[in-house]
Amino acid sequence: MEPIMDRQQATELVRSARIRTDTSWTTLAEKVGEPVVWTTAALLGQHPMSAAQAAAACELLGLDEDVAESLQTQPTRGIDPAALQDPTIYRFQEALMVYGPALKELLHEEFGDGIMSAINFNVSFGRRAHPDGDRVVVTFDGKFLDYRW
Amino acid sequence: MEPIMDRQQATELVRSARIRTDTSWTTLAEKVGEPVVWTTAALLGQHPMSAAQAAAACELLGLDEDVAESLQTQPTRGIDPAALQDPTIYRFQEALMVYGPALKELLHEEFGDGIMSAINFNVSFGRRAHPDGDRVVVTFDGKFLDYRW
Amino acid sequence: MEPIMDRQQATELVRSARIRTDTSWTTLAEKVGEPVVWTTAALLGQHPMSAAQAAAACELLGLDEDVAESLQTQPTRGIDPAALQDPTIYRFQEALMVYGPALKELLHEEFGDGIMSAINFNVSFGRRAHPDGDRVVVTFDGKFLDYRW
Amino acid sequence: MEPIMDRQQATELVRSARIRTDTSWTTLAEKVGEPVVWTTAALLGQHPMSAAQAAAACELLGLDEDVAESLQTQPTRGIDPAALQDPTIYRFQEALMVYGPALKELLHEEFGDGIMSAINFNVSFGRRAHPDGDRVVVTFDGKFLDYRW
Amino acid sequence: MEPIMDRQQATELVRSARIRTDTSWTTLAEKVGEPVVWTTAALLGQHPMSAAQAAAACELLGLDEDVAESLQTQPTRGIDPAALQDPTIYRFQEALMVYGPALKELLHEEFGDGIMSAINFNVSFGRRAHPDGDRVVVTFDGKFLDYRW
Amino acid sequence: MEPIMDRQQATELVRSARIRTDTSWTTLAEKVGEPVVWTTAALLGQHPMSAAQAAAACELLGLDEDVAESLQTQPTRGIDPAALQDPTIYRFQEALMVYGPALKELLHEEFGDGIMSAINFNVSFGRRAHPDGDRVVVTFDGKFLDYRW
Amino acid sequence: MEPIMDRQQATELVRSARIRTDTSWTTLAEKVGEPVVWTTAALLGQHPMSAAQAAAACELLGLDEDVAESLQTQPTRGIDPAALQDPTIYRFQEALMVYGPALKELLHEEFGDGIMSAINFNVSFGRRAHPDGDRVVVTFDGKFLDYRW
Amino acid sequence: MEPIMDRQQATELVRSARIRTDTSWTTLAEKVGEPVVWTTAALLGQHPMSAAQAAAACELLGLDEDVAESLQTQPTRGIDPAALQDPTIYRFQEALMVYGPALKELLHEEFGDGIMSAINFNVSFGRRAHPDGDRVVVTFDGKFLDYRW
Amino acid sequence: MEPIMDRQQATELVRSARIRTDTSWTTLAEKVGEPVVWTTAALLGQHPMSAAQAAAACELLGLDEDVAESLQTQPTRGIDPAALQDPTIYRFQEALMVYGPALKELLHEEFGDGIMSAINFNVSFGRRAHPDGDRVVVTFDGKFLDYRW
Amino acid sequence: MEPIMDRQQATELVRSARIRTDTSWTTLAEKVGEPVVWTTAALLGQHPMSAAQAAAACELLGLDEDVAESLQTQPTRGIDPAALQDPTIYRFQEALMVYGPALKELLHEEFGDGIMSAINFNVSFGRRAHPDGDRVVVTFDGKFLDYRW
Repeated sequence: MEPIMDRQQATELVRSARIRTDTSWTTLAEKVGEPVVWTTAALLGQHPMSAAQAAAACELLGLDEDVAESLQTQPTRGIDPAALQDPTIYRFQEALMVYGPALKELLHEEFGDGIMSAINFNVSFGRRAHPDGDRVVVTFDGKFLDYRW
Repeated sequence: MEPIMDRQQATELVRSARIRTDTSWTTLAEKVGEPVVWTTAALLGQHPMSAAQAAAACELLGLDEDVAESLQTQPTRGIDPAALQDPTIYRFQEALMVYGPALKELLHEEFGDGIMSAINFNVSFGRRAHPDGDRVVVTFDGKFLDYRW
Repeated sequence: MEPIMDRQQATELVRSARIRTDTSWTTLAEKVGEPVVWTTAALLGQHPMSAAQAAAACELLGLDEDVAESLQTQPTRGIDPAALQDPTIYRFQEALMVYGPALKELLHEEFGDGIMSAINFNVSFGRRAHPDGDRVVVTFDGKFLDYRW
Repeated sequence: MEPIMDRQQATELVRSARIRTDTSWTTLAEKVGEPVVWTTAALLGQHPMSAAQAAAACELLGLDEDVAESLQTQPTRGIDPAALQDPTIYRFQEALMVYGPALKELLHEEFGDGIMSAINFNVSFGRRAHPDGDRVVVTFDGKFLDYRW
Repeated sequence: MEPIMDRQQATELVRSARIRTDTSWTTLAEKVGEPVVWTTAALLGQHPMSAAQAAAACELLGLDEDVAESLQTQPTRGIDPAALQDPTIYRFQEALMVYGPALKELLHEEFGDGIMSAINFNVSFGRRAHPDGDRVVVTFDGKFLDYRW
Repeated sequence: MEPIMDRQQATELVRSARIRTDTSWTTLAEKVGEPVVWTTAALLGQHPMSAAQAAAACELLGLDEDVAESLQTQPTRGIDPAALQDPTIYRFQEALMVYGPALKELLHEEFGDGIMSAINFNVSFGRRAHPDGDRVVVTFDGKFLDYRW
Repeated sequence: MEPIMDRQQATELVRSARIRTDTSWTTLAEKVGEPVVWTTAALLGQHPMSAAQAAAACELLGLDEDVAESLQTQPTRGIDPAALQDPTIYRFQEALMVYGPALKELLHEEFGDGIMSAINFNVSFGRRAHPDGDRVVVTFDGKFLDYRW
Repeated sequence: MEPIMDRQQATELVRSARIRTDTSWTTLAEKVGEPVVWTTAALLGQHPMSAAQAAAACELLGLDEDVAESLQTQPTRGIDPAALQDPTIYRFQEALMVYGPALKELLHEEFGDGIMSAINFNVSFGRRAHPDGDRVVVTFDGKFLDYRW
Repeated sequence: MEPIMDRQQATELVRSARIRTDTSWTTLAEKVGEPVVWTTAALLGQHPMSAAQAAAACELLGLDEDVAESLQTQPTRGIDPAALQDPTIYRFQEALMVYGPALKELLHEEFGDGIMSAINFNVSFGRRAHPDGDRVVVTFDGKFLDYRW
Repeated sequence: MEPIMDRQQATELVRSARIRTDTSWTTLAEKVGEPVVWTTAALLGQHPMSAAQAAAACELLGLDEDVAESLQTQPTRGIDPAALQDPTIYRFQEALMVYGPALKELLHEEFGDGIMSAINFNVSFGRRAHPDGDRVVVTFDGKFLDYRW
């Protein structure tokens, strides 16, 4: 038996097919019927997709059933630490290192002792026009969870 | 000569005085006249403050001139790596590990090759009411910078 | 101004007073009015205590108000990595390294894609008699959180 | 001579066959005749299986004899550190970082100087209904071992 | 479908073809029509090239279309940490470790609080004749970005 | 006997006195009679100063003889790794990670097998006016050393 | 209240008093009434001592009651990783790196799947005369524990 | 030319053949004519074997000449750090972390300043019957080497 | 196009051919016409060889032109950190950890502020007869370079 | 009781007194009656000194008896890893990374399987005149130890 294609290999095929078919992540998200950050993350290996979602993406990208099968598997989530060196990703890391303790203070001030859920959670990505140059706007939106014994 | 108080010691005094005087970060920000995430980060040692800003904060908190002097110094920015273990901060780290590559893809799709600035940049923190429980909303807003030789 | 005593110093004083007054963690928990694992963790610096809880603990231990003040502060949670070498703590780490992936599989099988909350969560500690030698029984009990966008 | 299939490859085949044959870990455990956490961990490469156990699992999954041979080998136990980043596993790690020192204190208070064995040890996994949402319940149960020279 | 050749494999082919065709980086840069440091970095996998740039380089080197396709992909930037051990690269690292804090001081003195952009940025490489032995001259030239909320 | 003040303490006093006396690094360098990057690095603990250099700096800053004594000692050079997180320093590190291998290629192409010395070496710091915003210009200038057995 | 002296400080005092009173570890072990490796490890901070044991050691060494109090506390066991660099300790580490997998194989061959306990365990240290030079003989003796669910 | 089989591949083949031919390490050691710990370590890649030793082992295991050739090569000794996580090996590591400094003290007390050689050195493995359960007995026996300039 | 064989693969072939042709490093060095440490290091991937040097070595070892081509490429120098665990290499590392700071002191005392070049540098390896056992003698000989701005 | 001064503090006092009394390491070595590398290393905390050696050094340096007492204690040997960043020490590290595997090959070719002792071992430091600039010459001279079971 051939094992199910691993998620990393599926990711590489998705990336390649997306470029060759000149398909945007936005178009993929519309086809899949989910928000674009979720869809992109899922296709990059961070979420399991339903059979219908995987089939929709693979149809658009011209990918085989073995990719669709892989996209439905439960992944081990996370990032290769080397990828945090990439300047585009690193700026988010740097922002966290500079503003993380301030966010913790404000969260406790506003909500009390607890956290922002990273599970009941969504991320949006947008562009904001600005006379000095357009801006990247990324919003983290997660349910507050209080420490509750 | 006594050296200028280091920023870490100033941070401890700010934290203590804030609790004892029962002053909120929001009130501090109003007094300082800057946004609350900026003010909190600055008082925690991540930005130099102007003499007027430092004086305003210290007056409200009942802290001496030597703290105000320290708050005006240029800090070496960053976070003690151990603080990333704190669950409240870690959820932001986890979100970056799960969604970072997706954000990179979408940023390149929308803007081309470049980054979101972490310098020409602001962060806002807010609360959004929700029937299933209120939500933490954190927005990163930075100028797009394209790779330009 | 003297800064508020840091949590680590408060922990050392609690440990010392507990030994010298020959007070058990169980007695402390009863006095504080919270479960024993929570109370122990809080007194070791992992949770903020209410003023009443802190006062109760300090009264029993003969500790001053400055310790009680410290116990009410919001801590940065986590553990010194060196402490994971301690054999008593390491056995839990080892169990996680051996059984962690199995727990992930079973959690997904039973609940779907999500996690056990570590915030809406409690831990109980107990002793189970056994003819071959009594057993340590530790139960993690956390709300299931499904990935929900 | 072909070497015996390594445990990691056997794990991948078990995972794939389990999904394709739509077999639950619970069903596998019943067929193997062992508790479900033990069986899952063993099939993921953390315990050697007996010939009969391996044959039973492979028969159910439609896997060949070379997989069964691999499942009987003595593994080098442990986890790829990257897997600890996975949010589902990380919550257990976080719980250990927050409550580990408290567990050490209570274990010494109750049993004296020693440890909970991670060898004479079992883990159970369960679901507990709760009006606010069902809960994951994981119990570690290990023999107390006292330091004995 | 074959995935697009990854950048690392393209780099190996570029290196090999450059040696076998006895083509200098300078010649490649002229053909590509970009500065030599940029061109070298791009061909080593640090920048996406345009279709025309990639075609020009591959034509000169006798490389196939699949290499040219790879050179146009958006890379994850960065360096294998082991490569920092190489003595030729390490001297730059050492210079940064010895002079980095001084550069930070002078930058703040001259420009105020901010950074040298590494994105709106170029590097030049040159040789300077000197009676005691010619010198390597490397200039970093980046736009000043002030912290601006 | 009191040991000689360590370089780190001397650095803190230099930083404090420079701010309080409102003395620029440039003025310090003129007084010391050395280039400004060298002088700044030396005063921050990276080079031993001569007795005359140390005396000149301390006189300008109003610092005692024990600081001047410390500034003459041979330091162990290098940087606290945490300081590399500071965004102003990190941009240089990032530039090295992105362009380091390209610089190695070009250095070998131009000079053959060898390195740029980091000892027979100087760094200059400057400002270049530019209509889109002024630029930071940092030049590394080191003697080429060929591998010579 | 003064906290109980920490074990590290107690260790330093034991080391100093042992040298100044010219007392051997062997003599200390006889006085304490325990094997010499156990006694040495306990006095270096790896085991709690009974009140009688601590008093016996402190009397012999001329140390105060506050040291004896410290020696009775439950330590966090382990070693500063830097101490593993010491050549005398490192040779044991090296032996483990060279022979560890062989010991694992032989343990499983002889006993089945399980471990040598490090808790129900003792170490002896001795000297063996040999014509080519006397030899250090260290024996690890631990109860076999089989994996038992 | 095919390169000589690397030691890791030879190890895998030895492990596989040993299981399939149901040959014990003890039988292998007798055939090879060396102590069992040495033989096991050598066959796992930690020592070069003589041509006769390698031939004897391969004959018993039914392995080809290319394995025997590999077993005679000089290895780079050491262990994959991940293997130290294996509980059976980790207990030795833990014992070293708890008792290493005590062994250093006793070695210096008995022999003076020096080390136990890990080269002029042997390890024995045995089983000791005990009413409470049989015990694993591992003895390190190395020549004392004094620091001698 | 096949890429040029990488240096690591070339190293493996050199090692294998050297053993199979029973050629010493000394003989190789004579054939290549360079000192033996240089030649060995170059053949192990640390220096580029000239076409004539590579051809001479490959002829002696019976290796193909593709190996000779590889040996002429500019390597990224350095060592796999795991190789530092090998006891034969580790003793040099240990000597550096014990005597490194002393060498720094003596170098500064004798030469002033500067370094021993590792580029204008050679290493010799020899054997010195001694009644107590022959000795390994390794000499590092590098040009002094003074810090010169 | 005051504990014996630790070696690090003694090192700082030795360094300071050496500078203030303008005493060379060579003079110290003559007074102590040992080779200069040994003496320097011992005074920097890497070897225990005899009472007479410590007294001789302290007399010359004008240091008190408490320093002499400290110099006689058995140290934990090794180096702060940060000190390896210092360029003067790093060049030795780099040489080991480039030439270490070659030295291992040559050692095995000349002596067979074994190591150069780092215990029965000495280091000499010298200066060699050279028309192109004087050279640093450091020789490691250690007894060969063969792997002997």
